[in-house]
Amino acid sequence: MTGKEFFKVTSLENIYDLIGTFPPVGEEIIPLDRSLGRILTRDTISEINLPEFTRATMDGYAVGARSTFGASESMPAVLSVVGSVAMGEIPGVSARSGEAVRIATGGMLPEGTDSVVMVEHTQALDEHTIECFRSVAPLQNVIEIGEDIRKGEKILSKGTRIRPQEMGVLAALGQSRVPVYRQPVAAIISSGDEIVPIEETPGLSQLRDVNAHTLTGLVKLSGGIPLYLGIARDNSEELNRLLQRALARADMVLISGGSSVGSRDLTLDVIRGLPDSEILAHGVSISPGKPTILARIKEKPIWGLPGQVTSAMVVFYMMVRRSLEKIGGLSEEKLGKLQEVDALLSRNLASVQGREDYIRIKLVQKGEHLYAEPLLGKSGLIHTMVKADGLIRIDRNSEGLDRNSHVKVILF
Amino acid sequence: MTGKEFFKVTSLENIYDLIGTFPPVGEEIIPLDRSLGRILTRDTISEINLPEFTRATMDGYAVGARSTFGASESMPAVLSVVGSVAMGEIPGVSARSGEAVRIATGGMLPEGTDSVVMVEHTQALDEHTIECFRSVAPLQNVIEIGEDIRKGEKILSKGTRIRPQEMGVLAALGQSRVPVYRQPVAAIISSGDEIVPIEETPGLSQLRDVNAHTLTGLVKLSGGIPLYLGIARDNSEELNRLLQRALARADMVLISGGSSVGSRDLTLDVIRGLPDSEILAHGVSISPGKPTILARIKEKPIWGLPGQVTSAMVVFYMMVRRSLEKIGGLSEEKLGKLQEVDALLSRNLASVQGREDYIRIKLVQKGEHLYAEPLLGKSGLIHTMVKADGLIRIDRNSEGLDRNSHVKVILF
Repeated sequence: MTGKEFFKVTSLENIYDLIGTFPPVGEEIIPLDRSLGRILTRDTISEINLPEFTRATMDGYAVGARSTFGASESMPAVLSVVGSVAMGEIPGVSARSGEAVRIATGGMLPEGTDSVVMVEHTQALDEHTIECFRSVAPLQNVIEIGEDIRKGEKILSKGTRIRPQEMGVLAALGQSRVPVYRQPVAAIISSGDEIVPIEETPGLSQLRDVNAHTLTGLVKLSGGIPLYLGIARDNSEELNRLLQRALARADMVLISGGSSVGSRDLTLDVIRGLPDSEILAHGVSISPGKPTILARIKEKPIWGLPGQVTSAMVVFYMMVRRSLEKIGGLSEEKLGKLQEVDALLSRNLASVQGREDYIRIKLVQKGEHLYAEPLLGKSGLIHTMVKADGLIRIDRNSEGLDRNSHVKVILF
Repeated sequence: MTGKEFFKVTSLENIYDLIGTFPPVGEEIIPLDRSLGRILTRDTISEINLPEFTRATMDGYAVGARSTFGASESMPAVLSVVGSVAMGEIPGVSARSGEAVRIATGGMLPEGTDSVVMVEHTQALDEHTIECFRSVAPLQNVIEIGEDIRKGEKILSKGTRIRPQEMGVLAALGQSRVPVYRQPVAAIISSGDEIVPIEETPGLSQLRDVNAHTLTGLVKLSGGIPLYLGIARDNSEELNRLLQRALARADMVLISGGSSVGSRDLTLDVIRGLPDSEILAHGVSISPGKPTILARIKEKPIWGLPGQVTSAMVVFYMMVRRSLEKIGGLSEEKLGKLQEVDALLSRNLASVQGREDYIRIKLVQKGEHLYAEPLLGKSGLIHTMVKADGLIRIDRNSEGLDRNSHVKVILF
């Protein structure tokens, strides 16, 4: 234990600045229906007006608004029905003053009309005549040409993550193929002499590779493609070999484990031994997660994560996820955004000044209020991960939080 | 327009009860690394203790706690270092009173030891002797056999959606294959004479099939597999043919479009014409979304969605998503849970009593406060979908909401 190590501890803000220095991966063109969750490489400029024709937004009668002016329950306007609009066809009729044309939602307004009277506000007198009980204003119950999206308008920005509604808008614009960033590939390397593949029955003193599988899920959840490269024993040859393979095949490398000081040193040494490598951070002032390493090799981020999976999860949510999003092309203002919910703290919590503490939380609804119940106890107990709904942060400058404090719970 | 239709309007609560009556899809066994987001068909009972050996949670020295009693900065305990624990191996040494064994995080405690002194609380005097400046209690800085998970314990419940941490726990238990519900297949049928595939340039008066692509994304987001079957013209033969095909291949059917009264009637007629069909609801007292249809054919839910895609989205989030989760096997207490965030309403909003109103919201941070800014304007404008961050609900019994009201924004 002579190699006792002093961390070059940096702040989370500093880590975020470093994350911002990595360039995004390249572009690919994919079918629209596979684009959910992907990130646009280019602005989307509409080449068309939407709608391309003036369209009814209600079932009823297309009219010139003037024909209805002054109409009321007691003094209905009487209109001649001169035809109807078939859906998806250019109207074969037109209307003059005092005339109306049957139309359904989505139908194209015929010549001579500028608005739609809702069917609920009319009554048929006979097959060719209706009474209309309300007046409409010009453009009422219609969408005009280009009112939704104008030709030449920027409708989606580069760096936008595609949700179902963006798929809808791209469909409306006829974009059946979409330019997006490749999904970044994150290689996952587990390290440690005590780690065995999960298919094996661990010998006494050994552990299954929990981290690799947790990280596989976390990478997928963050829009990346996990690439599991296996377990490196605690020697520099094996770790070096796996790291080289990772750099050849992936856009980011996650080296998990090595929670002991010796094994962290090994990771640092192996990274330093590679050409063009640079250790950017070694140690972050958050708990858990202090022994985190961030390095750069050939423009790719290399993360050394704590060996305890509960700590690795916190580091992933607070740093690696943002890093994956950055190289995945997500726009600056959306980077590292996590789902949060407001709750009341169920008990007092102490903290150490000078570092950020992340505490696992179970959410409990009691009557009107949502409570954040800290899951305390020894670090490294994995059952607390599945009991937890999220994390709360205790600020670096805080000595702790009182019972019933308002807290933001980062959901996971 | 003589077929003016009166809805058999039901409440959202009633719809939720109906959704609860559909049985889940069947089971499949999949590799752990593909299980993210999937739903367990069975409880997970641990067949092992975790850990299976008493393990160090800190780097330091394994000792019998008694050897450190009374130790302090001024009166350190002096201990003989009799060996070290190699990671992943059964310790070859044991310790007696006054003796210590080097150990790293994750190492197995040797015989005669019950706790770990952190390396930070020791100082090496020579290669075989340390001073220890703090006392430890028995079991301090260790995890005991079974302390994390006990053999026979139920650790995950049937109906749980698998997150990265559940993948981690399953890995710890050696479950490389996982029993989950099949992903429900949701067939998507668009209807309407005016709708053309997005690859086509719509003629004047026609529209691209926006709904199918939005629904494709929504189904994926909700854990289902979308199966797009194409566009049915507004005639019963085409719709009947596509619906039959859907029932043969899917677990749920979404018929979108037909926002006009005539086209809704057509959908109802075609559903009624199939054997064993039952219309469960026609019309729901929410806005938008009133013309929603829910039917059952051969134990499968058939949803008729509004033709306006903005309305269809609201119906999907408030009803169809829950229905997909239900047949996908999600546990009762998690059904229909949506991500919400608290915000202040940026302006007054009126509403109609007797129905629930859903208003699209853009979230805007101003100083300390997050504001929910309603995106008003004509219904059916699709650009409002991509500008929106979520929805707020105005209660059935409310006449509206005042500026600066606290609102919960359902994120989408």
